[in-house]
Amino acid sequence: MAQSGGPTAVINASIAGVIEEAYKHEQIEEVYGAQNGILGVLNEQIIDLSEEKNSTIKGLLYTPAAALGSCRHKLSFGSKDPAKVAEAQRDCERILEVFKAHNIRYFFYAGGNDSMDTADKVSKLAQQQGYDLRVVGVPKTVDNDLPFTDHCPGYGSVIKYLSTAVMEASRDTEAMCSQPTCSLIEVMGRHAGWIAAGTVLAKRTDEDGPHIILLPEVPFTQETFIAEVKETIAKYGRCVIVVGEGLCGPDGKLISFMAGKFSKDAFGHTQLGGAAESIRGIVEEEVHVKCRTAKLGVIQRAAAHCTSKTDRDNAYMSGARAVQLAVEGKTDVMVILTREGSGENIKYGTGTAGLSDVANNEKMLPRDWINEAGTLPNEKFIEYAQPLILGEISIPHEGGLPKYARLEKHLIEKKCPEYGAK
Amino acid sequence: MAQSGGPTAVINASIAGVIEEAYKHEQIEEVYGAQNGILGVLNEQIIDLSEEKNSTIKGLLYTPAAALGSCRHKLSFGSKDPAKVAEAQRDCERILEVFKAHNIRYFFYAGGNDSMDTADKVSKLAQQQGYDLRVVGVPKTVDNDLPFTDHCPGYGSVIKYLSTAVMEASRDTEAMCSQPTCSLIEVMGRHAGWIAAGTVLAKRTDEDGPHIILLPEVPFTQETFIAEVKETIAKYGRCVIVVGEGLCGPDGKLISFMAGKFSKDAFGHTQLGGAAESIRGIVEEEVHVKCRTAKLGVIQRAAAHCTSKTDRDNAYMSGARAVQLAVEGKTDVMVILTREGSGENIKYGTGTAGLSDVANNEKMLPRDWINEAGTLPNEKFIEYAQPLILGEISIPHEGGLPKYARLEKHLIEKKCPEYGAK
Repeated sequence: MAQSGGPTAVINASIAGVIEEAYKHEQIEEVYGAQNGILGVLNEQIIDLSEEKNSTIKGLLYTPAAALGSCRHKLSFGSKDPAKVAEAQRDCERILEVFKAHNIRYFFYAGGNDSMDTADKVSKLAQQQGYDLRVVGVPKTVDNDLPFTDHCPGYGSVIKYLSTAVMEASRDTEAMCSQPTCSLIEVMGRHAGWIAAGTVLAKRTDEDGPHIILLPEVPFTQETFIAEVKETIAKYGRCVIVVGEGLCGPDGKLISFMAGKFSKDAFGHTQLGGAAESIRGIVEEEVHVKCRTAKLGVIQRAAAHCTSKTDRDNAYMSGARAVQLAVEGKTDVMVILTREGSGENIKYGTGTAGLSDVANNEKMLPRDWINEAGTLPNEKFIEYAQPLILGEISIPHEGGLPKYARLEKHLIEKKCPEYGAK
Repeated sequence: MAQSGGPTAVINASIAGVIEEAYKHEQIEEVYGAQNGILGVLNEQIIDLSEEKNSTIKGLLYTPAAALGSCRHKLSFGSKDPAKVAEAQRDCERILEVFKAHNIRYFFYAGGNDSMDTADKVSKLAQQQGYDLRVVGVPKTVDNDLPFTDHCPGYGSVIKYLSTAVMEASRDTEAMCSQPTCSLIEVMGRHAGWIAAGTVLAKRTDEDGPHIILLPEVPFTQETFIAEVKETIAKYGRCVIVVGEGLCGPDGKLISFMAGKFSKDAFGHTQLGGAAESIRGIVEEEVHVKCRTAKLGVIQRAAAHCTSKTDRDNAYMSGARAVQLAVEGKTDVMVILTREGSGENIKYGTGTAGLSDVANNEKMLPRDWINEAGTLPNEKFIEYAQPLILGEISIPHEGGLPKYARLEKHLIEKKCPEYGAK
């Protein structure tokens, strides 16, 4: 098994699900983890999970980030650069070489679209070569933008944490509103606004923040926004605004780029993460109120101390189900989550979607889940998201802080030549 | 009673301490709270706390921010502007006018240096006028910079939360370090580095973050810093850095200002809060590694979901003790916290310090509590800070989120002319 892309609060729970389920099946003789995602396969850095303590595996159920290590290495079969396509082909062959050397017959990859694409390509090549391999994907992303699945493990926890933080920041802003105050909180989400939208759960009454949520799906128009801020401040003496980092103007350009402050980083890449600062500039110039910003960065996706039990349980179930499917003979699929019923009687289950179908799709927030003004998600969204944050888990503490698990990572002996992937 | 300055996770616990203790004493007939600190006294906006539900008062024990409302209104007796001194004098007289109108004989003010100064001035004027008034301060500040007291209620909780967040962000950075990565987390602290220093508690082994803590007390020198970052990345493949917002260069100027990006806000004030972005620019240009920033803003001081039980209990004790002191006849003092013993056998108690002594002092992080290089607090600091984050409290949840209390705020009838303080 391997983990890929940005960490979450519960991706390790999926890994625990894979491990514990795998040990239940006689067909599976050894359980290995790749160190740092597909890079660990390429470089034959493979962790023998039988060497880990049972308590460490149990600890994965509440430990954030990615215990096996992650990476952003992509197999760029879709690239226009022939050199990159050739490299992807070489990588793919190398992966199979390593699998064969260690008699690896099941491959479970927890990740997002890119990871499902990688898993799909490896499986196809195995089939071409007549090597019996079963490949099953495990959904993972705080962004919640994978298609077919009801939701993605990681999402429920990130919005539970952010809603808690926004609720607390709103109380702070409320306490300080003897003078009109605006509070801006920037959250993740490059294309889809699922994360920003989720903070609406902090709002129990009209006066509670967030008062405005700026979603990447809704083009930012300054006039409408300023009018809304002024109205909110007139009503409550304060305005709490959540900004998705990928917020764009009507021209489709990033807001953070528009304002020019953060346009390029030291490498010349367009940097995200300055959206709240840009909006602050606009609010202070146009509304003349004090404005404070916060930007949670990676803290939000790693906030296991605020894990949703529902999310954690579904993450575990996704991992365990992936193993069952593979043992049953299924391959080239990703586990998806389904829901039946609603409210407190909701029941989650699993299904499957084709790896290649998942790889080329992105699920955006439906426009009819957002109010007409485009400033807040509506009842439809709340009905969807509310159950995902239910339940708290208890984390063992040591010296006043969480006691998270860390794998010892005993590597198995290498059998292939060096490869040197980065 | 009144609350002043920036909110914390536990200032409401101090208020609950005052209220519950006050009802135990026959001498005290009514318990009032000023809406938005001293502003509520000036404008005669006074909350009758007997009208609140008992469950709401109990809820203050885990509700963040400032339930009565806060303010930053100062009595500027020390100003060089004669108009401001005259205004302070008018304010002081008005406060007494309102106290007399409602037969208010005890005044408890929870806040920092400025609040203790205000409380002191009001008390002195009452004495001049022969009005029997007992004034006791309750310490409050996440900054932990009040003198005489062992620590300030609010500090233990802010560093428990930040250490948790830094621990989790460090795991995230660790998971993603297939390529060298630097993570920068900006925390509060304009003058003193107590908050930034507290995040060292997240560090259980050398490889754990934070690897470097940039403290306002230690002038930032780019060469030393860059060398340290390079060394850390060579060793662990990653570097987690905590930056105090008030970090200054060798010339005493703010780093955020030095880099020029955030120099002035829309009102022409020097804006803090850009220190991490400035440091990111330096790291990317000089070390050429990917750098991610996070800035917790007001979220950190309001993070009641991560309250330290020790901090909460001491906050409550400070409030309750203030009432006992006043009833015993004491005035013009602030409650201070004391400690006896160490480690798990530590016992906290209370004492007193003169209001005027507190008002004009600020407690900085001692230089011998920081390592020689100035990059991390040492064992002396850890011995001091560790006990302050011990213990977790259980917060009732509703729909997956904390269920915080909110006062109904029934105002008593006004008896004085309008004043119009802002």
